[in-house]
Amino acid sequence: MDRLSEDQIETGLNELNAHAAGEKWRVEDGKLTKQFVFKDFVQAFGFMTEAAIHAQVLDHHPEWFNVYNKVTVQLATHEAGGITKLDFDLAARMEAVTG
Amino acid sequence: MDRLSEDQIETGLNELNAHAAGEKWRVEDGKLTKQFVFKDFVQAFGFMTEAAIHAQVLDHHPEWFNVYNKVTVQLATHEAGGITKLDFDLAARMEAVTG
Repeated sequence: MDRLSEDQIETGLNELNAHAAGEKWRVEDGKLTKQFVFKDFVQAFGFMTEAAIHAQVLDHHPEWFNVYNKVTVQLATHEAGGITKLDFDLAARMEAVTG
Repeated sequence: MDRLSEDQIETGLNELNAHAAGEKWRVEDGKLTKQFVFKDFVQAFGFMTEAAIHAQVLDHHPEWFNVYNKVTVQLATHEAGGITKLDFDLAARMEAVTG
């Protein structure tokens, strides 16, 4: 899994954000980042549960922080030293879960 | 729900840590803090799922961060401006989940 170039990441972000609800995905600390906001904790944790199953299926796991109705996600591929297609795949599945 | 004094927090920590597996609970950034380490992501997320149900029952929710097999928990009571008995209750339930 190769690290994507800046151009590839920009193209990926445009595509991902065309279908993204709420806040847009962006690159922060070299990671694909988004804060998801839900109605309450149960909705937020429901999202995390679905996303967790997708992460396990992809064998690619997020860094994520939750407080009450907010989930901040950061995606990167440690072995590649950057953002890869796998990060965009997981991000797209997270968007599908919220849709 | 009243904010606990430093003495009460120290007593609470001693009691909690007498039964804690792994790392000890401590106060960090004014919050009851612990990093839980599991075998893998599925175990870590299983813990989070059980803890999430307890949090919802207590109507008291953690700040927590997960990456793969690690879950860092921070507990405080915003309305009280500090650590309360509710934080120790949730911490004790989290320990019971891992036990």
